[in-house]
Amino acid sequence: MLAPGHRVTRAPGGMAPGEFREWGHRFVDWVGDYLEEIEAYPVVAGSRPGEVRDALPAEAPLAGEPFDALFEDFRSVIVPGVTHWNHPAFFGYFAVSGSGPGILGELLAAALNVNAMVWKSSPAATELEEVTLGWLRGFVGLPPAFTGTINDTASTSTFLALAAARERQLPEAREDGMAGAPPGRVYTSREAHSSVLKAVHALGFGRRGVRAVATGPDRAMDPAALTDAINHDVTSGFRPLAVVATIGTTSTTAVDPVGAIAGIARSRKLWLHIDAAYAGVAAALPDKRHHFAGWERADSIVLNPHKWLFTPVDCSVLYVRDPAQLRAAFSLVPAYLETPETGVTHLMDHGLALGRRFRALKLWFVMRYFGQEGLRTILAAHIELARRLAGLVDAARGWERCKPSTFSLVVLRRSPAGVRGPERDALNTAIMERVNASGAAFLSPTEIDGETWLRFAIGNIHTTARHVDATWEALREAADEVG
Amino acid sequence: MLAPGHRVTRAPGGMAPGEFREWGHRFVDWVGDYLEEIEAYPVVAGSRPGEVRDALPAEAPLAGEPFDALFEDFRSVIVPGVTHWNHPAFFGYFAVSGSGPGILGELLAAALNVNAMVWKSSPAATELEEVTLGWLRGFVGLPPAFTGTINDTASTSTFLALAAARERQLPEAREDGMAGAPPGRVYTSREAHSSVLKAVHALGFGRRGVRAVATGPDRAMDPAALTDAINHDVTSGFRPLAVVATIGTTSTTAVDPVGAIAGIARSRKLWLHIDAAYAGVAAALPDKRHHFAGWERADSIVLNPHKWLFTPVDCSVLYVRDPAQLRAAFSLVPAYLETPETGVTHLMDHGLALGRRFRALKLWFVMRYFGQEGLRTILAAHIELARRLAGLVDAARGWERCKPSTFSLVVLRRSPAGVRGPERDALNTAIMERVNASGAAFLSPTEIDGETWLRFAIGNIHTTARHVDATWEALREAADEVG
Repeated sequence: MLAPGHRVTRAPGGMAPGEFREWGHRFVDWVGDYLEEIEAYPVVAGSRPGEVRDALPAEAPLAGEPFDALFEDFRSVIVPGVTHWNHPAFFGYFAVSGSGPGILGELLAAALNVNAMVWKSSPAATELEEVTLGWLRGFVGLPPAFTGTINDTASTSTFLALAAARERQLPEAREDGMAGAPPGRVYTSREAHSSVLKAVHALGFGRRGVRAVATGPDRAMDPAALTDAINHDVTSGFRPLAVVATIGTTSTTAVDPVGAIAGIARSRKLWLHIDAAYAGVAAALPDKRHHFAGWERADSIVLNPHKWLFTPVDCSVLYVRDPAQLRAAFSLVPAYLETPETGVTHLMDHGLALGRRFRALKLWFVMRYFGQEGLRTILAAHIELARRLAGLVDAARGWERCKPSTFSLVVLRRSPAGVRGPERDALNTAIMERVNASGAAFLSPTEIDGETWLRFAIGNIHTTARHVDATWEALREAADEVG
Repeated sequence: MLAPGHRVTRAPGGMAPGEFREWGHRFVDWVGDYLEEIEAYPVVAGSRPGEVRDALPAEAPLAGEPFDALFEDFRSVIVPGVTHWNHPAFFGYFAVSGSGPGILGELLAAALNVNAMVWKSSPAATELEEVTLGWLRGFVGLPPAFTGTINDTASTSTFLALAAARERQLPEAREDGMAGAPPGRVYTSREAHSSVLKAVHALGFGRRGVRAVATGPDRAMDPAALTDAINHDVTSGFRPLAVVATIGTTSTTAVDPVGAIAGIARSRKLWLHIDAAYAGVAAALPDKRHHFAGWERADSIVLNPHKWLFTPVDCSVLYVRDPAQLRAAFSLVPAYLETPETGVTHLMDHGLALGRRFRALKLWFVMRYFGQEGLRTILAAHIELARRLAGLVDAARGWERCKPSTFSLVVLRRSPAGVRGPERDALNTAIMERVNASGAAFLSPTEIDGETWLRFAIGNIHTTARHVDATWEALREAADEVG
């Protein structure tokens, strides 16, 4: 029996349209207030581990609950446990932020709830993905030879690219697997994202399947070291398969020399994948284009609109020169998925996932709402904020900057005279934790040559000079206090 | 220069809160109308290939566009190209449907836009995922020994499970890869989902890495054939790794004998993964529990709330007995992701993807809004509709049903006296295409022993007896017309 006051939803039917509208309007107002008042929230959740879990019952309610109760718990239990990526002083990781049109695109996508596994299961979702990724390709100046697909994250996009690389480079593994094949090797720099190793390991090449190539003074891959590594591996019985170059590494946004690497990859007949997950959209800016010279010679490129193009997570785009190679790795059509259309794209053939959300809708809204010029203006403003911050750091005594600051990330540390090694690392960790604990801003650390630095990542759509200046001031105050 | 009448969005800032509220309210009203008037839409999009693409410009606009223009194109270009999974006469594939609370959960998740890669990057997203998957575990009667994680699709969940299986069963591949390891083998029935082969191939075992075990009369895996296959492989130099059993196959919802298979897997020390992506939630119904006997002995289980628990795509749950085995396959923590907390879950360690949307929110809303009893009532109603349809088919001359109809799928075909083989297949395809083209309903085909059958999948939250009866009538009329 149900407790009095609880409402049971009749089956079938679900939520009545009137109730949906009522709560939809209330939630839209809440979101509007939330985005307007975002600076009133601490950036990082102050929760202790287990606090959210302990505030909720261990079992689902037997009877249905009124929406008031859900909304109340959302506000009193969930929101205080949220780290606010929307906060304009969120400077950690990469400062990923959505935007109004992106949020509204997700609302419509969730309502339509199509599953674009084959063309017929939602022609508009499939074709809008093609159209929008054509727009994005043009925006960043890639040639039409590239075909895009949206995946959840760059880790998945890189995994799919390397699976296609294996299919082309190690065809003997297609039927019989890798047990009889030579050990394969993927080359990437020491500064590459951990997702490369994760992908190579998942594909069955083991931890030794990745060879970390040495970097030069700017933490960019050294092409001579790449050639040496390939030569050494060939004589040792390894089969070189692919090179993963990065434009904008996670740690410091270092830029691998893509042109030189593309030449090596082509001459050695290796697959070239480019990880431009964060920085890729900066190719839309004329004064940043030179960092991308040669990327059009890659076999595959990942760039994430959910990172720095104001599109809610998840939206990672994988561009490939030859989608037939993705299909060779992933196309399998059982009878229950056969459809009569020809000449259409079935998104399920381009990756591991069969089901596909209508993720193109939010990106389409974002690109139309802002327009190419609007997006360029925001990206350029973020880079200008980083330049401004770099100047402040360079002018401050006892602070140091990891140069160059190529895009919108500034990597810095406190480095007073006479403080070195683990003592300096501990000082910087203490400064960062003090600022983060204040709730006023959030930065995350990195390691360069084994030493601790602080990453000040600009990219949130609401960030202005005021937020950058105040956080820089907070870092200096924290340094005085903990120093 | 921007054309007059176009608005440029200032950077930074994005959409003003007032504009967000205005359009949010208009979209909520549109969604309310859409769900209320869903039966006015044709189920399957009538688009010809390329129609949506051709209606849109080839390049992104230079200037930002007003939201009126986006909304107008959404209604006039996108919606006519959508196949309406929300329509109560959508009976194809599995009849996946969202629900009001699920849609509203997605709205809030998109607004918060957290990325729950590590605990600290959103404690509430991580802990609500733990809590809600504990609720779901209890709902379907699994023991607390299982730990859940949300992935995008069952294909990904199965891939992750088999990656963990490889890590445990073939530890020599961890460092050196599979080049020196014996060829591995994964066993599944001939009726298993194509995602098993896709996953095994992606993991590097090749197409021969899957051994399709023979099925018995109900299209369920034959345990004796499984034992024979394992024995044969061992003597042939293969390394048996894992068995994938299915509770509710895609083609006919056949149920593999999980208890017997679990016994074999345990005695041969193989990983047991269970694909209950569609049917898993039916374990919450006492009269369906016996189909699941023994699944609690599995190493991993996938079930998808986005399939038959009224949660918008994507939401696939992977339960594992020992999450340390997932972490062994996927945990890699670079310096820029290190955080000081101990005893907390970092979701990035449980799969390939680093970034994670706040997908638990919609499932939490759905489970609270309907309650366990409400969900059981809807599931039971769907099964009752299938039983009713099965009775109608069985009573009709010249129609045949593929028995049993265990859950909410009925597999049927027109089979008039004297019509057999390819002629009967063509007849059924023609009937299905006639009904689908009418826009009144949608069914999808399958193949059983090389012959064509029609799948009538019930599962949409808005489906009632009226929709089932009308579609059955439409099939009979189509049979008269094409026969």
